[in-house]
Amino acid sequence: MNVIESLNWRYACKRMTGAKVPPEKIDTILEAMRLSASSMGLQPYTILVISNDNLKQELFEKAIKQPQIKEASHVVIFAAWAKISEAQISEYINHVAEERGVNPETLVDFKSNIVNLVKSRSDEANFNWAARQAYIALGTGLVAAAAEAVDATPMEGFNPADVDAVLGLAEMNLRTVVAMPLGYRDEANDFLAKVKKVRRQKEKLFIQLD
Amino acid sequence: MNVIESLNWRYACKRMTGAKVPPEKIDTILEAMRLSASSMGLQPYTILVISNDNLKQELFEKAIKQPQIKEASHVVIFAAWAKISEAQISEYINHVAEERGVNPETLVDFKSNIVNLVKSRSDEANFNWAARQAYIALGTGLVAAAAEAVDATPMEGFNPADVDAVLGLAEMNLRTVVAMPLGYRDEANDFLAKVKKVRRQKEKLFIQLD
Repeated sequence: MNVIESLNWRYACKRMTGAKVPPEKIDTILEAMRLSASSMGLQPYTILVISNDNLKQELFEKAIKQPQIKEASHVVIFAAWAKISEAQISEYINHVAEERGVNPETLVDFKSNIVNLVKSRSDEANFNWAARQAYIALGTGLVAAAAEAVDATPMEGFNPADVDAVLGLAEMNLRTVVAMPLGYRDEANDFLAKVKKVRRQKEKLFIQLD
Repeated sequence: MNVIESLNWRYACKRMTGAKVPPEKIDTILEAMRLSASSMGLQPYTILVISNDNLKQELFEKAIKQPQIKEASHVVIFAAWAKISEAQISEYINHVAEERGVNPETLVDFKSNIVNLVKSRSDEANFNWAARQAYIALGTGLVAAAAEAVDATPMEGFNPADVDAVLGLAEMNLRTVVAMPLGYRDEANDFLAKVKKVRRQKEKLFIQLD
């Protein structure tokens, strides 16, 4: 399938079968998310990948009361950095230097740009920025899952603090922003499986200025 | 190229050649963005696609002083709805009903869910939510562009209000959130063209709970 075919195939399924997604497909989807774009390359988020049945059950009972949480093969949770510290930025800069085989000193201006940007904003503004970066990874993951013929449901309809509590995220300087169960659609029980995909009309969504 | 190869190929180029992207490739990238996922299907944003040279020049001079704006074939601007009205939600519901050939009355609960969610939040919270949805479309567009071997640079480092002023977006109930020039990398003049792509290590980005 090309990207357009994949996107036409996918939808946010409301029910999944419980079937397991093979590890190599999970690896491909995660690798796509790892490679996704991020402002200044920082990737200010952590991605939790939950296949443990007890944990999925607890998540369902205490935080996200939607059946896909139990019926998914893997539940992916995108959690953005609650606060962004200079230490996190330094770690990133050192990693870039190491990967590119350069002295971190050569990246001092790049580091200053990031530090100054982060310091110029409130923690909440930085969190919202980090959350938007996580949504790029979500968008990338949705395309990658569809390309692997794996269903993925982006999911927001829950209180993020409840997920944080189940997973102990506050202690890790993380705040949940969005969930993405991965699995297989249950066509027999999902009313959405057979209805037409609806998207805004091209002439309404786009303004072309030629 | 598969998705992983496409993502490894792409990077946020800092310089573009000015070469035009063929219309059929632009259409494919836009169609991928049109098909991208969005909470409750609402797609609460408008996407401006600018190929007019005078307008790109004005945008460069007054709002986004980065060379890709002039060197891109098309500059894509994602603008989220500044406020979300019940009229916009009704238009969406009526569109879904028409596309699926059902009476809008059958969607009354679905509509109430959206209206109640939007009314429960401030305009600013709704805008931030709309902006996150736009970032899903951005993530989708970046993958689609790479699959077409078209370069795309996600771009935030500017004052969104300056873009709004150039394009008259406030009058259209829109606020700029992010830009994405589309074009072709200028390998001779872009220092980033030949450096190694760096992403967070798998073991740091992911927490696997099996």
